[in-house]
Amino acid sequence: MNTDSANNNDYRVEYDLLGSKKIPQDVYYGIQTQRAIENFQITGVPISHYPSLITSMAMVKKAAAQANQTLKHLSDTKANAIVQACDEIIAGQWHEYFVVDMIQGGAGTSTNMNANEVIANRALEILGHPRGAYTHLHPNTDVNMSQSTNDVYPTAVRLAIILRHSELALAAQNLKHSLKQKGEEFKDVIKMGRTQLQDAVPMSLGQEFNAYATTIDEDVKLIKGLADLFKEINLGGTAIGTGINADPGYGKLAIDYLANISSVPLVQASDLVEATSDMGAFVLFSSMLKRYSIKLSKICNDLRLLSSGPLAGLNEINLPQMQPGSSIMPGKVNPVIPEAVNQVAFDVIGNDLSISMAAEAGQLQLNVMEPLIVYKVMQSIESLINASTMLSEKCITGITANREKCRDYVNNSVGIVTALNPYIGYENASRIAKTALKSGRRVIDLVLEEGLLDETQLKEILKPENMLNPSALQLK
Amino acid sequence: MNTDSANNNDYRVEYDLLGSKKIPQDVYYGIQTQRAIENFQITGVPISHYPSLITSMAMVKKAAAQANQTLKHLSDTKANAIVQACDEIIAGQWHEYFVVDMIQGGAGTSTNMNANEVIANRALEILGHPRGAYTHLHPNTDVNMSQSTNDVYPTAVRLAIILRHSELALAAQNLKHSLKQKGEEFKDVIKMGRTQLQDAVPMSLGQEFNAYATTIDEDVKLIKGLADLFKEINLGGTAIGTGINADPGYGKLAIDYLANISSVPLVQASDLVEATSDMGAFVLFSSMLKRYSIKLSKICNDLRLLSSGPLAGLNEINLPQMQPGSSIMPGKVNPVIPEAVNQVAFDVIGNDLSISMAAEAGQLQLNVMEPLIVYKVMQSIESLINASTMLSEKCITGITANREKCRDYVNNSVGIVTALNPYIGYENASRIAKTALKSGRRVIDLVLEEGLLDETQLKEILKPENMLNPSALQLK
Amino acid sequence: MNTDSANNNDYRVEYDLLGSKKIPQDVYYGIQTQRAIENFQITGVPISHYPSLITSMAMVKKAAAQANQTLKHLSDTKANAIVQACDEIIAGQWHEYFVVDMIQGGAGTSTNMNANEVIANRALEILGHPRGAYTHLHPNTDVNMSQSTNDVYPTAVRLAIILRHSELALAAQNLKHSLKQKGEEFKDVIKMGRTQLQDAVPMSLGQEFNAYATTIDEDVKLIKGLADLFKEINLGGTAIGTGINADPGYGKLAIDYLANISSVPLVQASDLVEATSDMGAFVLFSSMLKRYSIKLSKICNDLRLLSSGPLAGLNEINLPQMQPGSSIMPGKVNPVIPEAVNQVAFDVIGNDLSISMAAEAGQLQLNVMEPLIVYKVMQSIESLINASTMLSEKCITGITANREKCRDYVNNSVGIVTALNPYIGYENASRIAKTALKSGRRVIDLVLEEGLLDETQLKEILKPENMLNPSALQLK
Amino acid sequence: MNTDSANNNDYRVEYDLLGSKKIPQDVYYGIQTQRAIENFQITGVPISHYPSLITSMAMVKKAAAQANQTLKHLSDTKANAIVQACDEIIAGQWHEYFVVDMIQGGAGTSTNMNANEVIANRALEILGHPRGAYTHLHPNTDVNMSQSTNDVYPTAVRLAIILRHSELALAAQNLKHSLKQKGEEFKDVIKMGRTQLQDAVPMSLGQEFNAYATTIDEDVKLIKGLADLFKEINLGGTAIGTGINADPGYGKLAIDYLANISSVPLVQASDLVEATSDMGAFVLFSSMLKRYSIKLSKICNDLRLLSSGPLAGLNEINLPQMQPGSSIMPGKVNPVIPEAVNQVAFDVIGNDLSISMAAEAGQLQLNVMEPLIVYKVMQSIESLINASTMLSEKCITGITANREKCRDYVNNSVGIVTALNPYIGYENASRIAKTALKSGRRVIDLVLEEGLLDETQLKEILKPENMLNPSALQLK
Repeated sequence: MNTDSANNNDYRVEYDLLGSKKIPQDVYYGIQTQRAIENFQITGVPISHYPSLITSMAMVKKAAAQANQTLKHLSDTKANAIVQACDEIIAGQWHEYFVVDMIQGGAGTSTNMNANEVIANRALEILGHPRGAYTHLHPNTDVNMSQSTNDVYPTAVRLAIILRHSELALAAQNLKHSLKQKGEEFKDVIKMGRTQLQDAVPMSLGQEFNAYATTIDEDVKLIKGLADLFKEINLGGTAIGTGINADPGYGKLAIDYLANISSVPLVQASDLVEATSDMGAFVLFSSMLKRYSIKLSKICNDLRLLSSGPLAGLNEINLPQMQPGSSIMPGKVNPVIPEAVNQVAFDVIGNDLSISMAAEAGQLQLNVMEPLIVYKVMQSIESLINASTMLSEKCITGITANREKCRDYVNNSVGIVTALNPYIGYENASRIAKTALKSGRRVIDLVLEEGLLDETQLKEILKPENMLNPSALQLK
Repeated sequence: MNTDSANNNDYRVEYDLLGSKKIPQDVYYGIQTQRAIENFQITGVPISHYPSLITSMAMVKKAAAQANQTLKHLSDTKANAIVQACDEIIAGQWHEYFVVDMIQGGAGTSTNMNANEVIANRALEILGHPRGAYTHLHPNTDVNMSQSTNDVYPTAVRLAIILRHSELALAAQNLKHSLKQKGEEFKDVIKMGRTQLQDAVPMSLGQEFNAYATTIDEDVKLIKGLADLFKEINLGGTAIGTGINADPGYGKLAIDYLANISSVPLVQASDLVEATSDMGAFVLFSSMLKRYSIKLSKICNDLRLLSSGPLAGLNEINLPQMQPGSSIMPGKVNPVIPEAVNQVAFDVIGNDLSISMAAEAGQLQLNVMEPLIVYKVMQSIESLINASTMLSEKCITGITANREKCRDYVNNSVGIVTALNPYIGYENASRIAKTALKSGRRVIDLVLEEGLLDETQLKEILKPENMLNPSALQLK
Repeated sequence: MNTDSANNNDYRVEYDLLGSKKIPQDVYYGIQTQRAIENFQITGVPISHYPSLITSMAMVKKAAAQANQTLKHLSDTKANAIVQACDEIIAGQWHEYFVVDMIQGGAGTSTNMNANEVIANRALEILGHPRGAYTHLHPNTDVNMSQSTNDVYPTAVRLAIILRHSELALAAQNLKHSLKQKGEEFKDVIKMGRTQLQDAVPMSLGQEFNAYATTIDEDVKLIKGLADLFKEINLGGTAIGTGINADPGYGKLAIDYLANISSVPLVQASDLVEATSDMGAFVLFSSMLKRYSIKLSKICNDLRLLSSGPLAGLNEINLPQMQPGSSIMPGKVNPVIPEAVNQVAFDVIGNDLSISMAAEAGQLQLNVMEPLIVYKVMQSIESLINASTMLSEKCITGITANREKCRDYVNNSVGIVTALNPYIGYENASRIAKTALKSGRRVIDLVLEEGLLDETQLKEILKPENMLNPSALQLK
Repeated sequence: MNTDSANNNDYRVEYDLLGSKKIPQDVYYGIQTQRAIENFQITGVPISHYPSLITSMAMVKKAAAQANQTLKHLSDTKANAIVQACDEIIAGQWHEYFVVDMIQGGAGTSTNMNANEVIANRALEILGHPRGAYTHLHPNTDVNMSQSTNDVYPTAVRLAIILRHSELALAAQNLKHSLKQKGEEFKDVIKMGRTQLQDAVPMSLGQEFNAYATTIDEDVKLIKGLADLFKEINLGGTAIGTGINADPGYGKLAIDYLANISSVPLVQASDLVEATSDMGAFVLFSSMLKRYSIKLSKICNDLRLLSSGPLAGLNEINLPQMQPGSSIMPGKVNPVIPEAVNQVAFDVIGNDLSISMAAEAGQLQLNVMEPLIVYKVMQSIESLINASTMLSEKCITGITANREKCRDYVNNSVGIVTALNPYIGYENASRIAKTALKSGRRVIDLVLEEGLLDETQLKEILKPENMLNPSALQLK
C-alpha cells in the first residue's frame, strides 16, 4: 500500500448544500461539524466542557427517534440504532467528538448538527455501515426527523439546566448546614453587632451565622422553584413553533418519551411560537444565580472582615489556614477561600449581564444568541457548585471563635446604652453616650452616678441573654 | 417691631446630639431633616417624588403608635395625635415636607427622622402645642418608640413596593390584552416567519401578536408572585433584629395593625437578624423587572422592524402616527413610542445593576446602601408602569396590517420548501431551494418539473392553514 | 368681554403634518412640543433639569442662524431675531418652556423641535408678531434651516458635556487637594498597612492619603483628556451625514461660529456619516466616569473601614460628625457622607450600563437611543460633581487621626517580621512569626532569644522611617 | 524493591508554614502550587490557558534575578540558573506546570508561587540538584528575592496585556482594511439611508462601509493609546508599595532589565502605594474593549439587517455562505459569523462588569480580586482578536452588493423629497410627501403637477451624486 492510498483512507469526503469536505476517517462527526470547527475558533471551550449538554441532547434525540418510530415514520432498524447510539452518549461515550466552540453563530445549529452527525455515524457503525454512508441513515432526514434546531436545542439546554440545578441546590444546602452548625456552636459567643461598621448593640456570633444559614436556605428554595420554569419546553414546535414538518401526534409523544428518559416532568409550552424565541426562563434563573452570588459575596466579605487582623483587625473569628499567605510576609495567612468565592460571584454577575443582553437581542421568531446564553448559564452553575462546596468544606466547617475578644468588645462598648433607652429616654441616653465616648468612662458608671437607674436594674437590663433576646425581659 | 425680632419669629431653634440649628418656623420637619437637607444635595430628587414611600412610612408609624398604645407604653393622648397625623399623611397631606434627597447616607435614618419629625410636629399642632415643643411629644422617644430605622425603613419600603407593584401588574395586563386583541384581529394575515432575520416558514401575524401577549402574560404572573417576597417584614427587630428596646409583644402586634391599615397580609420574618440586612427580595424583584424590560424591548425592536420602510423596509405593519418624525425629512413618521420603551428598558436594566451592587455592599448587620436600592426600584416600577401604558394605548391598539405585503412575501418565498421535507427528503429539498434561489424560479414549478410531487399533493401541503398548523394536515 | 372669548384667547391653534392642536396662548413652545408632552410621560424629569443642555442647544441654533445669515439664506431681520432669542436662552431665560421628558422617542427630535418652537415664538415676539404666526418666521424652515435633529442634537449634547466636564474636573481636583493636605498632615502617623485585610507591614497614614490623592489626580487628567472626544462634531451633516439640504459652505461656517460662541475649539468630524450614528465618545467618557466612581467607592469603603468602631472596629481615623446616626442608638454617629458617595458610585455604574446598551442599539444611519444616553451621562456628571464636593468639604477636610491607636497596632504586630527577611531569611522569619502568633510573644524578643540578630541591628531595621522608606536603610 | 519504596520514589515531600505535602516527583511545581491546586477547583481553566501570562511572569523573574545579581544579593551561580530557567519558559517550555486555576484567592500569590517553584526546580536541575532541594536554591528566598506577589503579579499581568494588545490592534486594523476596501468597491452603489429604520435620504453603500472603517479605525488608535496606561508598573514596591525588603537600588534596576527583556518602555509608578492597589488601568482598558465590542456588535447587527431576506427582508447585500443554515429548512443560509461576533461582544461587556465590580472591591493596600480581573481581561482580549479576524476574513471580504435592489429603493422612495426642502420649503415638502405616501404616486410627478419646480431643476437636484454629496450642488 502506498502513501497516496493511505491518505485516501485517512479521510472520507462528505457533501452538503455548500459543497464537499474531507473528514478525518476516524471521527464520528461529519461535514457540518467540520465547517463549524473552522468557522468558530473563539473561546477554546468546546461544548464537551459541559457534559450535561451532550447528555441531554442525546436524551432529546433518543426521545425523538422513539416518537418517530411509534408513529411509523422511522423504521425499527434505524430507530433502534439511533437509540443505542444515544444511550452510549448518555452513558458518557463519544463526548470527545462534540467539538464545536461554546460561542457559535447559527442559534445552536452547529451543536445540533454535531449531535446529529455523531449519532448518525455511530448508528451506521452499529448497523454495520461505514461512517459517512448517509444513504443508509441520514443525520438530517433520520436523526433530526420531525425536529428543528429551534426546538431540540432549547429543549436539550433546558433539560441540562434542570439536571445540573439540583447539584447546585445540594451544594448550597450543604453550605447552609455548615453555617447552621456554626450557628449552634457559637450560640453563646456574645459579641457586638455592627451597623454601618459602627458599634451597635450586642448579639451572639451564633445569631450571625444562623442569619447566613437562613439567607442561603431561602435561595436553595428559590433555585429549586425557579428551575421549574425550564420544565416547559417547545419540543414539537420545529422551526418557529408552528410544528411544520412534524406529525401532529409527534410533539406530545416525544415529550412523554423525554420525560421518561430523563425522569423530569416536562410539559409542552402552551404557545409554541412564544416558547421558541423567548429566553425569559434563562434571564430569571440567571438572575437568581446572581442573587445567590450576591449573598455568597456578602457573607464572604463579612468573614474576611470578622477574621481581619490578627492584631490590627476585628479578629473575632479564625478561618482555617489553607496555604501560606504571602511570598514575602512570613507567617501571614490569608482568607483565600472567601476571596475566591467573591471572584466567582463577580464572574456570575458578569455572566448575568451577558445573558440579559443576549436575551434582549432576540428578533422576531428566534433568539440567535442562545449559544452564549447557554454558555454563560452553564458556567455560572458549575462555578457556583464548586464555590459553594469549597466555601463549606474548606472554610466554614473549620471556623473557630475568639470568644474573649468578642466579649471584650461588648463589655467596653458604649453601644449597650441603647438597651437603656426604654428606661431613661433617648435624650438622656444620647447624653450619657456622648460623655462616655469623650471621657472614656463606662456607661454603667455614668448612669449610676446620675442616679438614672440603680445597680440591680442595670444588671438585669444588661444581662447578655436579655440584650440578645429582649422579648425575655420583663419590662417594668 | 424691628428686623431682628422678625427674624427671631421666622425660625425656631432645635437641638440634637451634635448641637443646635435654626429651623424655618413654618416647616413641619425638624433639626435632623435640616441636617440631611444640607448634607445630601445630590440628585435633586426628594423622597416626595415617590408618594407611595411617604404613605407607607406613615402607615408604619401609625401601626407602631397603635401597638405602643395597646401595650400602654404610649398615652392615649399622644397615640391619638400621632395616628391622626399619620392619617393625614396617608391621605396625601404634608408630603411637601418630605424633602430629603433619594440618595442619602445613614441607611434611611434621614428618611425615618424626616417622618418622625413631620409626624411629631403635626401631632404637636393637633395637641395645641407649637412646632418644636418636643417635651410634649418627641420625634424619637414617642413617634419612633420601639422602632429603629433599621426595621421601620425596610418595612415601609417593602410595603410601598407591594402597593405599587399591583399598578404595574395592571398596566402589563392591559398591554397583554391589547396584544391579544391584535392577535385575534390578525389571525388570518398570512406572513413569513423569520429566524436569524432570514425567511423561514409561514405563520400568521396573529400568531406573532399572540406570542407577545403570552410572553407578557407570563410576566404579569411572575411580577405578582415575586412581590410576595416583600410580605415578609422585619418590623419589631429594631436595630439589628434582636428586638432590643421593644416590648416582647410589640412586633407581632405592630405587624397586625400594619396589615390591617394597609390591607396587605404582612408577616414577620422568622429570622429577624437575617431580615434586617438581607436585600435578596429587592435583588430578585428588580431582576424580574429587568426580565419584563427585556421582553418589552424585544417586542419593541420587532415592532420597529416590522413597520420599517415604508418602502425600503419590511413594511408588514403600520404603527399609529404620534408626531412628525423629522425636523428635516418631510412626511417621515417614526416609531417614537417603541423607541421610548426601549430606552426605559435600558434604564431599568441599569437600575438593576445599581441594585445588585448596592445589595452586595451590605456589611455585617445592615445594608447601608438601601436608600439607593429603594430609589432605583421605585424608579423602575414607575417608569415601567408609564411605559406599559404608553405602549398599549399609544401604539399597540392602533396598529394595522399590510395584508397584501405580508401575503406577497409568502407567495414568492423559497421558505415554503421546508413544508415539503417530509415528502421529498431534506437533500432533495435543499437542492430545489438552491436552484430556486439561483434561478429565481418558483419552488412549486421545480418540484413539479422533477416529478417529486403532483399538483394536488403540492396544493394540499402548501395550503396556508396547513403550514400554520401542520397538525391539521393528514400526512400520507 | 365674556368668558367664552376669554377662553378663545387662552389658546392658539397650531398645525403640523398630523393635524392641529390647541396650544396655551402664553407658552413659547408649539404643537410638536405639545405632542411630545402628551406622548412621553415617563420619568417626570424634563430637559430643563439639565440647564446646560438648553444653553448649548441655543448656542447651536445661534451659530446656525449666523451661518445661514452669512450665506444669505436667512434675512438679517430673521437672523437677528433668532440670535437675540438664543442669547436670552443662553442667559438663562425661557428654560421653563423646555418641557419634554428626558426619555423620549424620536432620537431627540422633540428636544430639537422644543428649541425650534421656543426660539421661533420668542423671535416672533421680538419682531412684533404674535406667538404662532409662523408665516413670519418658521420653526422648521427658519430656525432649523440647514439642520437636522441628527446633527444639531448630538452637537448640542456634546457641547453640554464639554461645558460641564470642567466642573467635574474641578470638583475632583478639589477633592484631590483635600486628600493631599491630609497626606501631609498625617505623614508621621505610623500605622500597619493591610493586605487582604490582614496585618501586613508598616506605613504612614500620610502615605495612605497621598495614594488617594494620586489616584484621584490621575482621573482628573483622564476626565479632561477624554472629554476631548466630544470636540469632534457632526454639525453640517444634516440627516445622515451627507449634508443634504445644507449649503456646501454651511457646515464649517456654523462650526466656526459655534466655537466662537462657546469658546470651545470644536472641529468637524472627518467622516460625517460615521459621526452621525456613532456613540463611541459617550461610551468611553461614561466608562471613565465609571472608573472615577469605582475609585471614589474604594476610597469611601476604606474611610468607613478605618473609622469603624469606635471600640469594636479599627478606629484609626475619625470622620467629622454630620448628623446623629441612629433613631434608636444614642450617641451613634455614622459615616453618612462616604455612604452617600458609595451610592452615587453604584448609580453611575448603572448609568454606564444603560449607556452601553443604548449605544449598542444603534441601527444603520442613526442611534435612536441617544436621548437616554444624554440623560444618563448628564445625571452621572451632575451627581459626581455633587458627590466629589460633598466628600471633600463635608468629610475629608475634617478627618482626624487616632495616632496612638495607629502606633499601638504597629508595636504589637507580628507583621514587622517581614522587615527581617533580608537578614534572617524567609524560613526563619516564618518560624518566628508562627511562634509569635501562637505564644503571643513579641517578634523582637524571639529574634534576640535565638540570636539571629543583635539589639542594635534590630533597632535600626525596625525604625519606622526605615520600614516606611526602606530605600533609606543601608543594608549590610 | 517493594511497592512502598516505589511509592517513595514517585513522590518527594515538601514543607511550608502549614506543614508538609507529597509532591509527584516529576513535576516542577512544589508544595504551595499543590495546595493551590487543591484549594481552587473552580473554572477548570488553568493559568497556562493564557501563555502570555506565563511568559511575562518569567520575564519579571528574570529581570529581578538580574537586578539582584547586579546588586550582589544573589550569587552568579544562582542568578544564572534562574535566568536560564526563565529563558526556557519565555521560549515556551514548562508551561504545562503552570496549573493554578485562573480564579484563585490570595491576590495572585498562588500564581507567583507557581512561577517561583517551577523556576526554582528547573534551576536546581540546571545546577545538578534534584527537584525540591531548596537549600541550594529557594523559591522564596532566591527566586522571589526583593519581590512580593503584590508587585510582581501586577507587573507581569500588565506586561502580558501590553504584549497581547498589539495583536488585538492588528486584528482590528485588518478588519478596518477589509471594511475600507468594501467602501471603495461599493462607492457607486446608490441606496436609501435609514434613520429609525425608516427610509431617510439617499447615500452610497460605500459611504456606509467607509463609516464602519472609520469607526473601527478610531478604536485601533484608542486601544493602542490606552494600553500605555499599563506601562507604569509597581515593581520594587514589594508588599504595599513602601519597598520593604528590597534594596533601595533594586526597583529601578529591575525595571530597566525588564524593559530590556520585553522591549517595552516600562516606567516605575511615581506613587508605589497607589500603584499597588489601584486597578484603574484595567477598568479603563476593559471599558475600551467594551466600546470596541459595542461597535462590532452594531456593525454586525447592521450586516444581518442589510442581508436579511432574501425575499422578505432588506436584501441589499449578501454575506458569504459559511455553512448550511438549518437542520430543517433546506437552502437556508444564515449570517453565522456576525451572530458569533455579537455574542463575543456580549461576553466582553459581561467581563467588563466583572472587572468593574472586582476593581471596586479593593480594600486598603491591595485589591485581592486581581486574579479575576486578569482572567476577564485576558479572555476579552483573546476573544476579540479571534472575533475581529473571523469577521474580517470569513465575512467582510466576501460581501457582495445587490445593486439593483439598492437602486430600486431609492427610485421609489418618498425620502428624496427631503432634497427639495431648500427649494419648496418644509411645509410644501411635507404635504407632497403625505400625498405620495397615501396615493402611491411618485414625488417627482406631484412636484411637477403643482408647478413647484420644473423638470430640469428636479433632475439636477435629484442626481444621486448631488444627493450623496450636496456640497457639490450649486444652490440657486
